[in-house]
Amino acid sequence: MSLIPVEIDTPDIMVELGVLERNIERMAAALRAKGLRLRPHAKTHKMPEIAARQLAAGAVGLTVATIGEAEVFAEHGATDLFIAYPLWIGPRQAERLRRLAGPVRIAIGVDSVEAAEAAGRHLGSAAGDIEAVVEIDSGHHRSGVRPEQAVAVARAAAGAGLRVGGVFTFPGHGYAPGMPAKAAEEEQQALGRAAELLAAAGFELTRVSGGSTPTAELTGAAEQAGPSALTEVRPGVYVFGDAQQLELGRCTAADIALTVAATVVSRHEGDDATPRRLVLDAGSKVLGGDRPAWATGYGRLMDHPEARITALSEHHATVVWPEGVDLPALGERLRVIPNHVCVAVNLVDDVAVVSEGRLVDRWRVAARGRNS
Amino acid sequence: MSLIPVEIDTPDIMVELGVLERNIERMAAALRAKGLRLRPHAKTHKMPEIAARQLAAGAVGLTVATIGEAEVFAEHGATDLFIAYPLWIGPRQAERLRRLAGPVRIAIGVDSVEAAEAAGRHLGSAAGDIEAVVEIDSGHHRSGVRPEQAVAVARAAAGAGLRVGGVFTFPGHGYAPGMPAKAAEEEQQALGRAAELLAAAGFELTRVSGGSTPTAELTGAAEQAGPSALTEVRPGVYVFGDAQQLELGRCTAADIALTVAATVVSRHEGDDATPRRLVLDAGSKVLGGDRPAWATGYGRLMDHPEARITALSEHHATVVWPEGVDLPALGERLRVIPNHVCVAVNLVDDVAVVSEGRLVDRWRVAARGRNS
Repeated sequence: MSLIPVEIDTPDIMVELGVLERNIERMAAALRAKGLRLRPHAKTHKMPEIAARQLAAGAVGLTVATIGEAEVFAEHGATDLFIAYPLWIGPRQAERLRRLAGPVRIAIGVDSVEAAEAAGRHLGSAAGDIEAVVEIDSGHHRSGVRPEQAVAVARAAAGAGLRVGGVFTFPGHGYAPGMPAKAAEEEQQALGRAAELLAAAGFELTRVSGGSTPTAELTGAAEQAGPSALTEVRPGVYVFGDAQQLELGRCTAADIALTVAATVVSRHEGDDATPRRLVLDAGSKVLGGDRPAWATGYGRLMDHPEARITALSEHHATVVWPEGVDLPALGERLRVIPNHVCVAVNLVDDVAVVSEGRLVDRWRVAARGRNS
Repeated sequence: MSLIPVEIDTPDIMVELGVLERNIERMAAALRAKGLRLRPHAKTHKMPEIAARQLAAGAVGLTVATIGEAEVFAEHGATDLFIAYPLWIGPRQAERLRRLAGPVRIAIGVDSVEAAEAAGRHLGSAAGDIEAVVEIDSGHHRSGVRPEQAVAVARAAAGAGLRVGGVFTFPGHGYAPGMPAKAAEEEQQALGRAAELLAAAGFELTRVSGGSTPTAELTGAAEQAGPSALTEVRPGVYVFGDAQQLELGRCTAADIALTVAATVVSRHEGDDATPRRLVLDAGSKVLGGDRPAWATGYGRLMDHPEARITALSEHHATVVWPEGVDLPALGERLRVIPNHVCVAVNLVDDVAVVSEGRLVDRWRVAARGRNS
């Protein structure tokens, strides 16, 4: 039996419903057991059908990256959204946040005095309806301030009329071999330190927010208490898994819920000058072009762990095949695991939902392309 | 005066109309002077408004990568399309090609006996309406056969009822420092050899097709003649330019017609442990994640050539700033040149068309996401 339903034209993105639902339930159970709130990052899937399943499994709300994503999930019934991003708010952004903040509980990230002041200036009296969460740099060195700078940012936010609710970080340096445990520890330390300083300065915090898929199950613990304890985590990728998580050992092949169906369009036994290889019709315009230096290639083949995707063009994956293993035939259909599932999903208008080898539905990627 | 019109919310893709039109005219003139036909690759822009300008400047038709792209440009009036890809044709692909081949002159790539036979089997009597173009590997080692294998593929295509029109190659190994001239030479040699062998086997060729933006202006020459002479080239990126072409020396900053408008959302003077940096709100979901090993980073800043984009997340570009140069302020808006413009355009539904600092139009990316 082919694992790719015959109705599917390649390349196309397939979501295995049973695996998806198992992943959603497992993360929910793991965090429930730790007494941590789960606020999954919806930028990974951008689909209301998946958000609904996460909320039904006990998620307290959703994380999003942009105002546009917040608008899409609010239209589909979300009532508690954290835009975990250091927004720069001008008049139009303020107007959109005002509209959202009526029916929806909205929190936003802030990592500078200037951004807090701009938010207050443009939000006006609506600022009090919006929670500011101070972003902390826990070692990824992207956005976020050092814990010692958090009080200044929080005071600026409060001075601008925003409600200061807590602190958050993204331990993105956990996306590398051997790093998840270290990143989870640094996340806990940085957030804890910032939360203690804010508490000492008189802020009453309700949110100490961390987490990512590689670190979420390593993070926090029920025995922690006091202002420095994590209250919520925001993993995204766990719903699908991807080749990065697989190669980091944070999931197994059986946990991969999303693959790209592809066809062998070119096949070469190789010679002295050229590698033994296949070309698949899934390129960077459906897999995404992410390739961390430590990865084995530009994704993995689900059923051929020995193969290596050595190059990606827009519509071609070049797959080098080991000697001694038969090359699949021209026209054969294979499943490719993207390196980074969040960018793959963002490349398609809808996905094929598959169960037991059958196409059971198509779901629209409702927040695709909502970059601002 | 800001170079980003005030109506634009970031991140957003901007196309400078004057630069675009100058790029289109310059490539057309360069190839006209060599007696080469220009068949620009529309996968770069995916926009009917740009295709129309290319055709008005003398392009003989368009190149596309997928049947879906062919359908979009046919709907918008294109009458001569080359799907320069080794298609694997099943019943549904055959039906779509049959529908296209009525009003439109259609050519497709083929690089194996098996694919030619599958095409003939499913196209049936419509096969004779479609031109087969044999793909040659000129050194990129992706798809394509060696010149010596071209006759076998061409005979299979003819045996399957297709009209064999010629040969093509993509000299993709020209996308690296010091490589464009070598790749252009190898392209000419491989295509010439394959064309000679096909002519000797009795095939009458009307198409010897090469070219890419780095090699197009180095390729072919009016003084060549006979069956081995190039007849057409298929550059794509030249309409916009991008950071790869800039760093390869194939265009200048003044030739860059497409940039991503971005806002400084986080700003850090740096310290012993962390770099002096900005974070912009343009990440891999609008710039694309491509980063060749030889590139200086994940794109370039148009007005700050000294800055380096050292990391890209989905919604963050981390930009390291040299000592001694002032860090732009929070909220400042900057223009980012993507590394690979084809994948950036494919991430947005429409682009802002800008002229002399004013927003003059928005064009829909009509073929966005048409991967199959």
